[in-house]
Parts: sequence; C-alpha cells; structure tokens
Amino acid sequence: MKFCSACGAPVERRIPAGDERERFVCPSCDTIHYQNPNIVTGCIPEWEDRILLCRRAIEPRRGLWTLPAGFMENGESTQQGAARETWEEARARVEVIELYSLFNLPHIDQVYLLFRARMLDTDFGPGPESLEVALFREDQIPWDELAFPVVAKTLKLYFADRHAGAYRLKLGDIERLPGETRDYRFTLMQA
Amino acid sequence: MKFCSACGAPVERRIPAGDERERFVCPSCDTIHYQNPNIVTGCIPEWEDRILLCRRAIEPRRGLWTLPAGFMENGESTQQGAARETWEEARARVEVIELYSLFNLPHIDQVYLLFRARMLDTDFGPGPESLEVALFREDQIPWDELAFPVVAKTLKLYFADRHAGAYRLKLGDIERLPGETRDYRFTLMQA
Repeated sequence: MKFCSACGAPVERRIPAGDERERFVCPSCDTIHYQNPNIVTGCIPEWEDRILLCRRAIEPRRGLWTLPAGFMENGESTQQGAARETWEEARARVEVIELYSLFNLPHIDQVYLLFRARMLDTDFGPGPESLEVALFREDQIPWDELAFPVVAKTLKLYFADRHAGAYRLKLGDIERLPGETRDYRFTLMQA
Repeated sequence: MKFCSACGAPVERRIPAGDERERFVCPSCDTIHYQNPNIVTGCIPEWEDRILLCRRAIEPRRGLWTLPAGFMENGESTQQGAARETWEEARARVEVIELYSLFNLPHIDQVYLLFRARMLDTDFGPGPESLEVALFREDQIPWDELAFPVVAKTLKLYFADRHAGAYRLKLGDIERLPGETRDYRFTLMQA
C-alpha cells in the first residue's frame, strides 16, 4: 500500500494513537488502513468411500492436487463459500455437512476452513482454475503431489478419523519455518 | 475505496476478466482490489461457574455488555487473537480451551469465532475499551443489556450445553433482516 484509498495521498507507516501496531495511516485525511487475515474456505467432497480432488491450472502450485477451496467473499457465509468454490473449481454440487478443520497459516495471514460435504451426484469436471478433477479412494490419494501442507494435513487427519469411526473438529497452526526449504511446523490444539 | 492504493489513480467498479463479481479495479495500473470478510475472535473466559463480561466504553453499543473479542490481526492465530483481545479488553490472562462457536454475519462481512477459555486467576479489570469488567453466574447475566446478538446467542447455547453436560461446536448464521428495527434471523447448521 502506497496511497490512501480514500483520498489518494501517499500513506505513512506508523502506530496510531491508542493502538499498539504499525498501520498504514493517511497524513492527509487521517484514515487508518487496517489489514487483516483472509479466510480460505473449501470442501472435502465425499462420494461413498472416495473424495474429490482438483489438479490446479493456476499458480501457485500449478499441476498439483488440492481440495476445492478459495477466498471467502463478502456477503456469503463460510459454508456458502465452500460450496461455491467446489462448484467453481470442480463443477460439483454438494451439501455441506460440518466444519472439519480450521488451520491458522500466520506466515501468509490466512485461516483455512475445510468442511465435510456430501456430493449430490457424480457430475463434476474441471472449472477454469482446474486441469482435471477426480475421485480418489484413500489408497489412491497422490500424497506426493498435493499442492499445500494444509490440504495434506487435513486429509491425513480425515482418513485417521474415518478409520476411528468418528470425525472430530481439528484446529491448529501450520507455520512455515525460516529458510529456503519448504519446511513447516504443525501444532494441533484441538483434535 | 476511491483511489488505487498501489498507484493513487481513481479506481473503477467493474467485473474483471475471468471473475464473476464487481471489484474495485485500477484502470491505470490494473490492480484488482479484493475486499473480503474479517474475522472477529474472542473468548468465553471461565472461572468456576462464572464467565467474564466487559461493558463497552466505545461505540458501537457503548455501555452494553459483551464477551472480549475483536478483529484478528495479521501474523497471529485465531486463538492467539482471542487471548490477546481478552487481555486488551478485560486485562485477564486465559488459556484457550477450544473453539465453541463460529457465526457468519454476512450483512457486515464478519465471521465471529468464540473460544472457551480458562482464566488463570481472578486478576482482571477494564482495558481502554471497557468501562467495567465483571464475573457473572448464569442467573446474573444481563441478557437485556448485551451488546450484540452473536454474544447473546452464543451464551444461550453455551449455558444450555453446560446443563446438558457437554460443549459442542456451534456453527451458523446471524443475518440482520431489512428494516429499521434490529431483527435478526438465526440459522444453526451445526450444534
């Protein structure tokens, strides 16, 4: 952010009165521009013993597999956003069942919400952001070709819960460790 | 939003290529300015059979009671934000136990997360945004002086769960109905 979205003047970085954090502040019109985490909402679409994954047609992680998910939009609920993303990326219609995982990704200021969802039929196919879409049994999941750690972690927990016979909400953090390698720390607070 | 925060030029409202929603778009530098819901995170601070409420010193709803909660900040987790807000508004130190409720408030583009939390001691007091802070048993809760429907709804569910002997995640929507009166529709998807 370089300019004030309210008046167009150049912004400054400083701690506003009564605050404890640096913000972008407009010295001309005094607007404080807060920046806050975004919600990514999506589904684990279920059909019998299989789940639906999408192979990404866009960056980041083009060519790798993921659950249908994306940024929650204004005016919708988390579960509406999850179903919308499942339609947009996988052309699948679902009934959302329940929240399955909430993961904080503080290094990129995102909170990931993934819902269990029942596919209404087996009509599906790639939306504009997917190369292909397919149903996978647990032993068919392309573990080494998953796009994001949050998806791999959620699916591992999901199949463990399925074997245990009950799904329970998972809540935790996934933090990227410093350095060039893609190493992450997982912390599960609620399982 | 009137001006592009990247280059300072006046923005336009239009649907970008490949999108389905109107966004603020800069005709000069082509930046698309997405606007997405914010997370409000907070605690139900517990001490024996009582919970901690704050009387608001700021608008909106100044003078009314609420749970300690506020906007999640970049770089923190939802549960860290909940504990931070509990410190800032009620000067209480807590250990967060588990997520208790997630409510979508689509009319104001907010998602409310309220966590059960254990107070570490009975040292507490008003932070700068509170007039007073106090512990309440269920029969002492000022139901007619609560600031927000999401707080009233969560507390009703919370005490019902306490009587039933088990806390279970609540997930639903609170939508403000059209008109001048403060009427809301509650929909519970997960209880």
